[in-house]
Amino acid sequence: MRSIFRHSLAGLAAAVLAFAAATAHAQPADPMPSWNDGPAKARVLAFVRAVTERGGKDYVPPAERIATFDNDGTLWAEQPMYFQLLFALDRVKALAPRHPEWKTREPFASLLKGDLKGALAGGEKALLEIIMATHAGMTTEEFEKTVKDWLATAKHPETGRLYTEMVYQPMLEVLAYLRANGFKTFIVSGGGIEFMRPWTEKVYGVPPEQVVGSSIKTKYEMRNGKPVLVRLPAINFIDDKAGKPVGINSHIGRRPIAAFGNSDGDRQMLEWTQGGGGARLLMLVHHDDAAREWAYGPKSKVGTFSDSLMSEANKQGWTVISMKNDWKAIFAPMK
Amino acid sequence: MRSIFRHSLAGLAAAVLAFAAATAHAQPADPMPSWNDGPAKARVLAFVRAVTERGGKDYVPPAERIATFDNDGTLWAEQPMYFQLLFALDRVKALAPRHPEWKTREPFASLLKGDLKGALAGGEKALLEIIMATHAGMTTEEFEKTVKDWLATAKHPETGRLYTEMVYQPMLEVLAYLRANGFKTFIVSGGGIEFMRPWTEKVYGVPPEQVVGSSIKTKYEMRNGKPVLVRLPAINFIDDKAGKPVGINSHIGRRPIAAFGNSDGDRQMLEWTQGGGGARLLMLVHHDDAAREWAYGPKSKVGTFSDSLMSEANKQGWTVISMKNDWKAIFAPMK
Repeated sequence: MRSIFRHSLAGLAAAVLAFAAATAHAQPADPMPSWNDGPAKARVLAFVRAVTERGGKDYVPPAERIATFDNDGTLWAEQPMYFQLLFALDRVKALAPRHPEWKTREPFASLLKGDLKGALAGGEKALLEIIMATHAGMTTEEFEKTVKDWLATAKHPETGRLYTEMVYQPMLEVLAYLRANGFKTFIVSGGGIEFMRPWTEKVYGVPPEQVVGSSIKTKYEMRNGKPVLVRLPAINFIDDKAGKPVGINSHIGRRPIAAFGNSDGDRQMLEWTQGGGGARLLMLVHHDDAAREWAYGPKSKVGTFSDSLMSEANKQGWTVISMKNDWKAIFAPMK
Repeated sequence: MRSIFRHSLAGLAAAVLAFAAATAHAQPADPMPSWNDGPAKARVLAFVRAVTERGGKDYVPPAERIATFDNDGTLWAEQPMYFQLLFALDRVKALAPRHPEWKTREPFASLLKGDLKGALAGGEKALLEIIMATHAGMTTEEFEKTVKDWLATAKHPETGRLYTEMVYQPMLEVLAYLRANGFKTFIVSGGGIEFMRPWTEKVYGVPPEQVVGSSIKTKYEMRNGKPVLVRLPAINFIDDKAGKPVGINSHIGRRPIAAFGNSDGDRQMLEWTQGGGGARLLMLVHHDDAAREWAYGPKSKVGTFSDSLMSEANKQGWTVISMKNDWKAIFAPMK
């Protein structure tokens, strides 16, 4: 027995050494295969190397590796308009039979006649009315089911894809790569927190407790002996622009070291992230690929990337990702 | 080489089998050594076994193993009054030189004369004034430093311990035991979210992003080119009673399967947790140990455990933990 035991130890050591030799100099698989080699990809790889290298001057302990991602236009598409708004429009149609008064009341009357432009002519007030009519008045569980049902069947008007198939493959790779390196990845979006949570875990690998977004108020009550949270027609929080650092502080309670956005709504999130000092990864997705996605910028009402944001990015050294030049693929493969 | 390799595999297999045999029937270390054997301890162990047993009828996937803990009176003590209030009173004294007007203005005038009862005679309004005067008007970073400095030196008036040494050893064991079994542990407290976050990771192993609490509003702005969040003298959210399910939904976005509290403020959290169906762990710490801690209940203004809550606990099958009978030790050892 002693001899076998000694053999086994020697053998185990030999096996370990052989395994180490075989893997030490092997080329690791490319963690970002949908990215062209270029400054944006290099920036991500260099940053992750810097903050994970033990003993390095930029080392960050795993607990503090917080990365925040905008959603609309950063993780999934946002044209011809925010997908949550398309959801709301579909809900108006579905709910119309229960609301005969909508036939003569704006913005619903125009909407139901297919006149989107007329409906939105009422500006922010009209938009808010549409949101409240479709997002409030039910329990959180009922709303979650409605979102899931819609996403399971609704198709994008131009690509014919499910909306959850309009997520950016290169960004899925960044999310996974950061998590493989000890990061906690958060979504910090102007979109509705409860519109995102039903699907972000499956689609992005981001669990509900790591989603930050805009919200309406909810109220706790007992209905037939069962506790429910009822969604009220009142804004609770707008997680956009200067609201993003507030939302980050409220939900995460520490400052990110990496932040990804694509529009003017993300500027303050990048400023706040940068303000903490130390190594930082700050990136803006630029929609400049009319052939494979959409090309838009300073003049777009959806996902505005103003000249002022571009000049700030240049001044601060934030990396602007060109979808056209930096990305080999745009959308994740259809399932 | 072939022979050595074969030996090594056989040896490795033998070693693995020997290790398995040595550990399989070993008594695992008691995860809750500060608990007396009794129904409360047995309840925790049985629940964890049930939700982690693969293939069992009560199995819960790790991502859904969410446990929420009240803080004051559940994880640390709350007598002679909430520690955050003691912090506020110390801050009034520290800030008084900058506020000469406080000498003649209530509730500050009474406070500065040492007349706490007189100061609090103004009820909720007086309390709110004290909180706003001491918790608002600075940046989030400045407030965090103030909390840390106070906790590093301030001592409890009766025990002489640091406040962070007045945490309950049996509850630290429950937190660690749940986490070792794949749970995410959250604090859901009526206390201030930013009063807790600076120390909960070190003391409880609960990171800032898993702390839910009451909050005042904050505002993002640039000060001398540096982004800051300024704390405003306006309530944002009260995470107590019916606010707890709202706070849980806002921050966590899914329903807990375990909840721990100690007072009427926790009732709705336990109801909401129970309402989801499936195996649940619902526990209330009862302060009934006048010798080793404090004994209080329905008549206490701090940490009220009303007769109505006790009867609801009995009716719903929530476990009431007797500090006197269930706990071998009360406080964590001093460091």
